[in-house]
This record gives sequence, C-alpha cells and structure tokens, in this order.
Amino acid sequence: MSKKLTSRAEDYSKWYNELVVKADLAENSAVRGCMVIKPYGFAIWEKIQAELDRMFKETGHQNAYFPLFIPKSLFEAEEKNAEGFAKECAVVTHYRLQNDPDKPGKLRVDPEAKLEEELVVRPTSEAIIWNTYKGWIQSYRDLPILINQWANVVRWEMRTRLFLRTAEFLWQEGHTAHETKEQALAEAELMNNVYATFVENFMAIPVIKGVKTESERFAGADETYCIEALMQDGKALQAGTSHYLGQNFAKAFDVKYVSKEGKQEYVWATSWGVSTRLMGALIMTHSDDHGLVLPPNLAPNQVVIVPIYRNDEQFEEITNVANGIMKDLRSKNISVKFDNRDTYRPGAKFAQHELQGVPLRIAIGPKDLENGTVELARRDTLTKSIVTIDNLSEMVEDLMTEIQDSLFNKALVYRNSHMTKVDTFDEFKDVLESKGGFISAHWDGTTETEDKIKELTKATIRCIPVDGEAENGECVYSKKPSKGRVLFAKAY
Amino acid sequence: MSKKLTSRAEDYSKWYNELVVKADLAENSAVRGCMVIKPYGFAIWEKIQAELDRMFKETGHQNAYFPLFIPKSLFEAEEKNAEGFAKECAVVTHYRLQNDPDKPGKLRVDPEAKLEEELVVRPTSEAIIWNTYKGWIQSYRDLPILINQWANVVRWEMRTRLFLRTAEFLWQEGHTAHETKEQALAEAELMNNVYATFVENFMAIPVIKGVKTESERFAGADETYCIEALMQDGKALQAGTSHYLGQNFAKAFDVKYVSKEGKQEYVWATSWGVSTRLMGALIMTHSDDHGLVLPPNLAPNQVVIVPIYRNDEQFEEITNVANGIMKDLRSKNISVKFDNRDTYRPGAKFAQHELQGVPLRIAIGPKDLENGTVELARRDTLTKSIVTIDNLSEMVEDLMTEIQDSLFNKALVYRNSHMTKVDTFDEFKDVLESKGGFISAHWDGTTETEDKIKELTKATIRCIPVDGEAENGECVYSKKPSKGRVLFAKAY
Repeated sequence: MSKKLTSRAEDYSKWYNELVVKADLAENSAVRGCMVIKPYGFAIWEKIQAELDRMFKETGHQNAYFPLFIPKSLFEAEEKNAEGFAKECAVVTHYRLQNDPDKPGKLRVDPEAKLEEELVVRPTSEAIIWNTYKGWIQSYRDLPILINQWANVVRWEMRTRLFLRTAEFLWQEGHTAHETKEQALAEAELMNNVYATFVENFMAIPVIKGVKTESERFAGADETYCIEALMQDGKALQAGTSHYLGQNFAKAFDVKYVSKEGKQEYVWATSWGVSTRLMGALIMTHSDDHGLVLPPNLAPNQVVIVPIYRNDEQFEEITNVANGIMKDLRSKNISVKFDNRDTYRPGAKFAQHELQGVPLRIAIGPKDLENGTVELARRDTLTKSIVTIDNLSEMVEDLMTEIQDSLFNKALVYRNSHMTKVDTFDEFKDVLESKGGFISAHWDGTTETEDKIKELTKATIRCIPVDGEAENGECVYSKKPSKGRVLFAKAY
Repeated sequence: MSKKLTSRAEDYSKWYNELVVKADLAENSAVRGCMVIKPYGFAIWEKIQAELDRMFKETGHQNAYFPLFIPKSLFEAEEKNAEGFAKECAVVTHYRLQNDPDKPGKLRVDPEAKLEEELVVRPTSEAIIWNTYKGWIQSYRDLPILINQWANVVRWEMRTRLFLRTAEFLWQEGHTAHETKEQALAEAELMNNVYATFVENFMAIPVIKGVKTESERFAGADETYCIEALMQDGKALQAGTSHYLGQNFAKAFDVKYVSKEGKQEYVWATSWGVSTRLMGALIMTHSDDHGLVLPPNLAPNQVVIVPIYRNDEQFEEITNVANGIMKDLRSKNISVKFDNRDTYRPGAKFAQHELQGVPLRIAIGPKDLENGTVELARRDTLTKSIVTIDNLSEMVEDLMTEIQDSLFNKALVYRNSHMTKVDTFDEFKDVLESKGGFISAHWDGTTETEDKIKELTKATIRCIPVDGEAENGECVYSKKPSKGRVLFAKAY
C-alpha cells in the first residue's frame, strides 16, 4: 500500500498485476504458475461460489466429487479431448519419496515406486466422470443425471497470469447425461443462460451469449456455448462456457441406456464451467487507477466505517454512533466493518479501503458528532457527501442497489461503444488497432479464413452471437457469401 | 437396493462397505484408492462443511487457497514432517503427454517434458503455507494469522477403505501464526474444542478430548490435541486433530517477526484438520442392519412423504395434503421431500429411505385421508405411529430435536459402557478381546512400553484425556510408576 498503482493508461497489464497483489487478492507462489488466493480475494470467490451454487441447485443440480487423478488409459479414450488437453498436463509417475543416500537431509523419488500406469492430474473431468457414469446408467429411469463439482484443475500453461491463466485453478464443472439430443442441447443452453444471468446481475459485467466456431470449441464438444465480456483495454474475455458433447463421451466410454421403448441408446451429454478467471474479469471490468472497484454483491465488506478522533472520549462517542449504524445496516443484511485499528491513521485506512474496493465508506469525525452527520464516500464514483444520520441505513440500502446498477450500466455503455460493425478488412484492422473492442463482421464460415484473420491481426472469432440477426453479406476477408455477422476481438 | 445388507454381527467390515455403496454415499473409482463421493454422500459432507465453516468464521478465521503442489525442496525443509509424509505421496515428474509413436491412439509421457524439480501433491500443506507466510509476516502487527483452507489432499495409502482411508480425501486444514507460545497453545486447544462441540452437537457423536503421545503425534508437531470417538464394533476412530507446532515450521522456513519490544522472534504455529473420514465415523456410530441412520442435522432430507394410492383421484388428494405439510415444515426450516415417483412402489420407496437414513417418514394413504391422519415412522427407533394431521409440523419439529438427542445419548451410553478401567495386563488383554472399546489404564510414559503393548495386542494409546484425573498408579505392562490413566484401544 506504500506505492501508488501504475495507471491503466501507462501499462494496463502492469496495473492489473499490481492491483491483484496490492489489494491482497492473490500472489504468485513458489510453484511455477500456481497462485495463492489470499483471504480477501478468496472471500470474493466465496461469494461467487455461493450464488452460483444456489443457482445450480435451483435448476435441479446436485454436487458430487470425482477423483483428482485420471489414469492415462481413460484419458486416451475420447480422442479429441485427449488431443486437446494432453499437451499441458501434470503427470504423476511415482508414489514415494525416499531419503537421498547421496545427500543427507534431501529427498529423492524412490525409483522402486514407479506407478504401473501414469496418472494425469485432471485438466477437466469428462474422462473420469463418464467412466463412472457408465456404472450408474442402465435405463431411462437413471436419466437425467445433473451433477456439478467444485474442484481444482491443472493445465500446464507456459505463460501464466494471476487469475487469468494459472497452472492450477479453481472452478466448477457440471457434467450431465440425458436421454435425447434435444434435452442435452437445452441443458447446455440453460446453463449458458444461468452463467449470463449470474455474471450480469451479480457481477455487473455485461456479456454476449454466443456459440464458438469449430476451431474454438472445447476439445470433445459438438457445440460450445459461451459468454464473452469486454475488458477496459478493449480485449475480450471468455467468462464461461457450456458444451453440448453429443454422444462423444458416451461412445468413448460405452455408456448406453435402455429407452422407454426398450432400445439400447447412447447417452447425450453436456459439460459446463466457470473458474477463478471470473476474478480477472471482475477486476478488469470495474476497477480504476485507485484500485479495485467491487459491485456490492461481491464485496466482503459492503460498508466500512472509519473513525476520526483526537482523544479517547471522541473515540468512545464515535464508537457508540458506529455501533448504532452497524446494527441498522446488519438488520438490512448489509455487511459492515468498523475499522477501529489504532495502528493506522485515517488516511492510511482510506487508502486501503479504496485500493480494496469497499463500495461505501462512512467517516465519522468530531464535527459529525456535533451535527448528527457522517461523511459518505462512494468508491465507484469517488464522490463524497455529508449526510444526516437519520435514515442513513435506508440511504445506504438504496446506494447498494444504485452502485450495483451503475457499475453494470457503465460497463454496458463502454461495451456497446466498443462494438463496431465493419465491412472491409482495412476498416477491420484499423478499428482493431485504434479502438479495440468487439468487431462485428461477416465471415464465410471457413476455418481457413478464421485462421488467416488470426494470423494477420491476432483477432479471433469470440462467438457467433445467439441473438444475432440473419443478414446476408460478404466475408470481410474472403468476400465470399456470409449469412450473418460474428464477433471478432483480441482476447485474454 | 435389491439385496439386504450383511448384518453387523455377521461381518462388520462388510456391512460398512455395503452400506456406503448401497446408500449411495460413495464408491470406488478407476483410480486406485480414490473414491467417488456420490451426490447423496456429498450432500451430507456439504452440511458438515457449512457448519464447520460457520464455526471457524465465528472464531475469527478466514478462508484462503494455497497450491496443490509442493516443490520437493520445500517439502524437505521441516525434517520430521518430510519424514512422516514422504513415504506416501504422489509425485509429479513430467508436465506433458504426447502421442505414442509406437502405439497409434495411445499416449505416453513426453520424455522431453521432465520437471527440473519434482512436485509433491500435498499430503498436508504446512510446507507451502509457511513458505508463503514468510512473505506475509514482518511485525507483530501482522499477527495473528488465522487461516483455513478447504482442499483435497493425497496420501498414498496401501490399504484403503471408503471414507476411512483413501488416497485422495477432502478436508479442511487450519494454519495459524502467533506471537507467543501461549497464544498458539490456546488456539490449538480452542480448535480441538470447536471440533468436539461440532462432532457432539451436530453429528451426535460423543468424543473424548485428549492429547497424543509422542509417537502418535503429527509429524512436525510439539503437541497434538485430538478427539476420539468409539465405533459400534468397539474400535476407536480419531475424528479430528489440532496441532501445536511450536516454532518448528517458523524455524524451517525462517519466519520471524519484530515484536512490540523491537526484537526479532520466531513465530509460533498451529494446524488443525478434519476430513471426509468424519463420514465414516457418522456411519459407524449410528447406523444399523437396515442401513444408514442420520441425525437430523446432517440429513439432506429430514422428512420424506410417501403417498399410497390406488388411483389418480387418491393421488391428487394426497398430493394436496402433502403440499400443505411441506409448506408447514419448510416454514420451520425442516427439509422435506415428496417422493411422488410413479416408477417405484411404496414398499421400494420405504426400503430406499430406510437404507439412506431419512430420519422421519410420513406415509399418507386413503384411510389417512378419511381420518385426517398420517403414519409417522422414525428411522432411529424403527417405530411407527398414526397421528392426526393437526399440529403435525410442531410434532415433527419436536421429533427432530428428540431424534438428534436420542442418537447422541444412545451413542454415549454405548461409549461409556465400553470404557473399562483395568489394572493388570491379563485383564487388559481379556477386555480388549472380549469386549473392546476404550481401556483406561496406567502407563509409564515411555514409547518403549507403548510399542510393546501395541505389538502384543494391536491396541494403541488413543489419547491422554485432557479431563483425566491425576491418579498415581503403576503401569499396566511395566509396573513402573504412572501419574494418570490413558486410553488404549484398537483403532481405525
């Protein structure tokens, strides 16, 4: 907290890294690419978890837990999935360390303790779960299976960044099994909608719902639904995905059921997930050069009260007032902390709470005691006002809603103003460089063109919007016919 | 559900394994020693988690998350800890698989992708956490640190049993840092008390609080507090441990703080944990030959309503009655499920809910409609009664408390009647074989005697009770002087 943050304009990437560390959200660990999520950051993640978990249960899902390890032979079963994930996974080959005979006090891998079959630390759990579902599914009576798990997964990324791309990350992964294609498609779309609702209403981040092109799909999926958000630097971020897996895993693991009509059929599947990456989206949507800005729904402390006093008597009086305010706010389910630490001055406290994004700060000083007022400071607008203490809790309650809505609207205005329709490739490149954001353009539907555009501009097709209008046109690159616009952007 | 459970008298171990699988709690997976926790089992674990998490937060702790992997060099730092855990851990040596050039469609470990330093999958997290705390602690202002994490850990056990001993298991591990020895000791004792309160009040399992002997201590601890429970087969089960770690980890990782007096001091530490093993204790404390018995606090469904009908009209009437009951029960925060599946007969439903330990079953048939009654069946006592529907929700509410208390008392009576004071080694062996349970006996305080008794009888010292009376006597084995009794038992 000693030094100011690098500004976003100066170096967005540096600003982000500094903010994550200085706001006590997370830090790098001694393990390459693995982060430590600190208590303040984890408290935000717990709020994300709690609300999502509630929404999953409301839509009929139950939690379960499957093994961390996947035997190599199971991992091989679904070819595309294996191909997509095998290149970046942690492999357990031994099950014991022993004292190193050559180096006292040091350990070495016991060469005698080699596993017969290597175990992959799960990068995603389709393989182990579908191998398990095989034993659970015999008849249509066993379907649907609607299961979610909260878990850690590991993907051996070469370039990592706190929250955005880490070797180990926390996520939830839903894995469902259905009788029909229609049911599986409906489930995949339902969960993408749950994600969109959650990210927009709870995290105040506007998203575009769409489907991925074939080359951007999850390895093993027949269709990948996604929600795409736009960060302040004009780059897109994939905030959640929901996959329609067809019968690919059912066939790979031979999972059949007897239908109502007595026929043996392969089961239809979905999987869907969001991860601690959402923390990155949160930071890069709302925060500013002063630090983190939190929507009230996600703030570990929605309100902080800072006393300003010269002597014990004043402190005692302020404490009394603060206790009354806290009681009122808590009765309205507003979380509030009285920052009565005597080891820090008010200025240092202000700076810390600003950096950590506490939505509303209440300062109470000697003058306020005289006047029956407090000073209210909004983190999102950085505005202050003196208000009377009467009806304070009602005012704070209204402000919680107002701040939440205001953050969403501000992000929405930014996003909408960075969604540009272009019809020529020169314009495409120009907008991408000068303005960034989403570029809405016609595409001929071929992977070839998609790859070429990526090679030339680093922009990828983020999604084919599900709410997009049918509009005949010609591909921005190849000039071949197109039936609708897709969204391009550079992305995290 | 097709076959009856093996009875406890016939084969307790077989009964346990069958119950876990048939009641849909957990099953073995394709990965040696790793289990799948099924939705019904996981719903019970979620209740355990939620209440413990509440209690941890109430006592000032925050959650965080530390990496799954521990670099070998960090693991070596605390010698005893490394010694205790190195013999049974999963070791990641490579970070990539590749297509096997000799076997099309198969994968192999990429020999080029060998890690410079091997990573241990955490068997416990002291090493990675204390390496992190080093960066967090400079002054007494940074203390105490009171952190918990919910995580998966891996210990390569040779003989595994569902919930009781699995290679991967779920747990929570608290890791705290303090200014003084006294504070650390107080924390270790506090958390052992939190565990005792939770296990007794919430899980209805009586426990004995004690400390471990030196040879049974956690590797790296100076003192291990524990709670010990007694299973129905007369074997003890360690239900939770809380370790006073002294300055062992602070010294191993060089974690010092500047005291109020300006002196550099090593930090004092604790760690404490409970795991999915508690599920095993739950099962083996309360369940019977008919299946699982759940205390209402832990039941995913506290009440189930089963309709008995011959035609649609009756079903509709019963549904109306059931809806009214559900509304009343839910307003009292009692969870209730209406089992209106038309794919199963009432008898099959009764059997399933009995096997799965639903505390209270309400059956409603045509006669009940006429008489304004329902049939109430208690799972714990297997008793049934016809009661009028008036005041049903009050009656159910009272029964929830009564069943919870009754299960605890029943377990307490059993435990107390299996706590035998013995003063000779013949008696010791006789009680251990004929009756089992805890044996309260004098011990001379030496590891030598402890080992000898273990070798001869398989009984270990479960704990030195913290509430034990001082009583001079002579060691049951060596006849040397002793200052108090300790508790021996065979244990899980």
